[in-house]
Amino acid sequence: VSIITLTTDFGTSDWFVGTMKGVIAGINPRANVVDITHEVAAGDIRSGAFALAASYCFFPKNTIHVAVVDPGVGTRRKAIAVQTTNYLFVSPDNGVLSFALGREKIKAIRLLSNERLFLPDVSRTFHGRDVFAPVAAHLSQGRSLKRLGPAANRFVKLDWPRPKGKGNSIEGEIVYIDRFGNAITNIDAGSVAGIGPDCELRASGKRLCPLKSSYQAVPPGRPEAVVGSCGLLEIAVNGGSAASLLGLKVGSGVLVQCRQLTRR
Amino acid sequence: VSIITLTTDFGTSDWFVGTMKGVIAGINPRANVVDITHEVAAGDIRSGAFALAASYCFFPKNTIHVAVVDPGVGTRRKAIAVQTTNYLFVSPDNGVLSFALGREKIKAIRLLSNERLFLPDVSRTFHGRDVFAPVAAHLSQGRSLKRLGPAANRFVKLDWPRPKGKGNSIEGEIVYIDRFGNAITNIDAGSVAGIGPDCELRASGKRLCPLKSSYQAVPPGRPEAVVGSCGLLEIAVNGGSAASLLGLKVGSGVLVQCRQLTRR
Amino acid sequence: VSIITLTTDFGTSDWFVGTMKGVIAGINPRANVVDITHEVAAGDIRSGAFALAASYCFFPKNTIHVAVVDPGVGTRRKAIAVQTTNYLFVSPDNGVLSFALGREKIKAIRLLSNERLFLPDVSRTFHGRDVFAPVAAHLSQGRSLKRLGPAANRFVKLDWPRPKGKGNSIEGEIVYIDRFGNAITNIDAGSVAGIGPDCELRASGKRLCPLKSSYQAVPPGRPEAVVGSCGLLEIAVNGGSAASLLGLKVGSGVLVQCRQLTRR
Repeated sequence: VSIITLTTDFGTSDWFVGTMKGVIAGINPRANVVDITHEVAAGDIRSGAFALAASYCFFPKNTIHVAVVDPGVGTRRKAIAVQTTNYLFVSPDNGVLSFALGREKIKAIRLLSNERLFLPDVSRTFHGRDVFAPVAAHLSQGRSLKRLGPAANRFVKLDWPRPKGKGNSIEGEIVYIDRFGNAITNIDAGSVAGIGPDCELRASGKRLCPLKSSYQAVPPGRPEAVVGSCGLLEIAVNGGSAASLLGLKVGSGVLVQCRQLTRR
Repeated sequence: VSIITLTTDFGTSDWFVGTMKGVIAGINPRANVVDITHEVAAGDIRSGAFALAASYCFFPKNTIHVAVVDPGVGTRRKAIAVQTTNYLFVSPDNGVLSFALGREKIKAIRLLSNERLFLPDVSRTFHGRDVFAPVAAHLSQGRSLKRLGPAANRFVKLDWPRPKGKGNSIEGEIVYIDRFGNAITNIDAGSVAGIGPDCELRASGKRLCPLKSSYQAVPPGRPEAVVGSCGLLEIAVNGGSAASLLGLKVGSGVLVQCRQLTRR
Repeated sequence: VSIITLTTDFGTSDWFVGTMKGVIAGINPRANVVDITHEVAAGDIRSGAFALAASYCFFPKNTIHVAVVDPGVGTRRKAIAVQTTNYLFVSPDNGVLSFALGREKIKAIRLLSNERLFLPDVSRTFHGRDVFAPVAAHLSQGRSLKRLGPAANRFVKLDWPRPKGKGNSIEGEIVYIDRFGNAITNIDAGSVAGIGPDCELRASGKRLCPLKSSYQAVPPGRPEAVVGSCGLLEIAVNGGSAASLLGLKVGSGVLVQCRQLTRR
């Protein structure tokens, strides 16, 4: 069974995602199409890139990941397919793959230019349906990457804000707010030895919260930091939204202070 | 693999769609159920009809399309199945199929009256689960249309607002607002020769926007008209919502003016 | 084909549900994963329990139902699998199964403690992905319940508010508001003989609405009570939201008065 995942900003209130699945089923009826999310904010390439990076590696080897957050549809922006050791990725070349690809070993990049693999009439406004869905479906049948178009040797990369270390503290920022209002930072707990129960998070010079081991390790309504499911430190409120209660947004700065930190 | 699509106003916050899929799986475990949308506004038959018409033909031949926007559930409204050259449609007979069927060649219409194909206890309020899901599942196993009930020779049709041509201009209206805020008109770009870069759209006597070839063909925040993915002219704003920025709603009138138009 | 259903409060705007499906597909590529809902309000165990109870029995025998509304993730709360005559259930032991299990004959309960059936690195914050998805996938391959962990003989039960009968009237309350604004009560129409067209509903001492047989049995905008698709009495407004028009919330009391009632 071939798996094709979809990460888009198409929402689910219109028929956009359904038609992509119809196109895929028409080419490869045995493909198993799995939604990662379609609720990326309209045109928000960074959020789409983050959602894909947080999820792609939980899928089995050879999964085809399709990411279509595509504000430049119909312009001269390129479209690419990228083969890594474990996965295939298909998307507009606008950076939406870059956080995922930053963790993968890249084997080949191809531009999508072979129109015989597209729908016969390619619209100017919906390449998810007309280009990316059919290309992914053809790839899921074992079609060679070489058939897609010419090789490329690079792709658009978004900057990932790297946290800065200073002695026993780390300066980071919020990179994503999830549906529970948890504010996910760019600080990877696995990259530093010493992140533990003696650490605390600060913002605007004030003590924000201590690091704990579960969402309910503090009383209801109280803030805390936990190591989230992607390995990144996140700020949570037991039973509430950290983002709204603490006024945190994507880009808000945070400082982690610990007794003893060692970079790995 | 048989494909069954679902277009409903059931939303995804309750268990309604899940139970339809459970009923289908109990009858035909091999059916591949694909959501078109469940976010049709409650009881909005026209929007459901539009969503179905915009998507159904991207599915492979023999797909069974189930549309349940059914404010009259439990009353004497009829339920129908319609065989066309390429597809099967199942729905309450309230017009929700009419925009899709307007483009199809109809082979047979049957009323749904054979209760042996329904769930044993048919509720008064949820025929999506009790009637339409099981009927679609039985059809997906190759059950003959004749088993459903008596033949019919008509079905409820909604009026499609036809655009009016006057010399080199066309008067149309907005028929759908999508999640990006794009305002889709009833003007089919393929039906008129001469719709091109010298055309512009007007509303309330004022120049609204020029016709362009992609969403990003104007500066960010500026309006434009494009030929959308269904072939209909739509009004968009680069990076924003045309509906809210220009105050467009379903039913708002628009005028297309071109240098030279020829009806096809 | 094995069916696994998912009922969660993870929403669909992030990647949470997608990663659960990725984990399942990696273990059992043939599992058919069906969403019941992911829009349970964050941490609202009662609503999740209600959604599951309203839907689980429409799935075929041997379906595996996974319910993850899990505010206590990462604490000492237990996780369980429950075998009933017809189904398998997997969830945190916090009551989310209790309304469904209240209608089932229980054959076995096991605690989830065998870490070889979990993902290798179990996070503190996302057991949907790390524990419940892989356990369900292993079970869908026919893995014995005994492999999961030690037997248990009880599970957390939520109180179901039982309606109180007094002569020819029944005092109940609203237990769920659906997406149409229908207010579902705890009064099971099948448990009492005499619920029929001569009954009416009252709230705060005032006549609220009569009992009718379909949503459109009253004029548009008027309230009524109907027997809903779960067999429970619900208050509806033809073409509108009963909850907002009548100010009904979960917990609001209602009184059903009939000419003649007999408890079954």
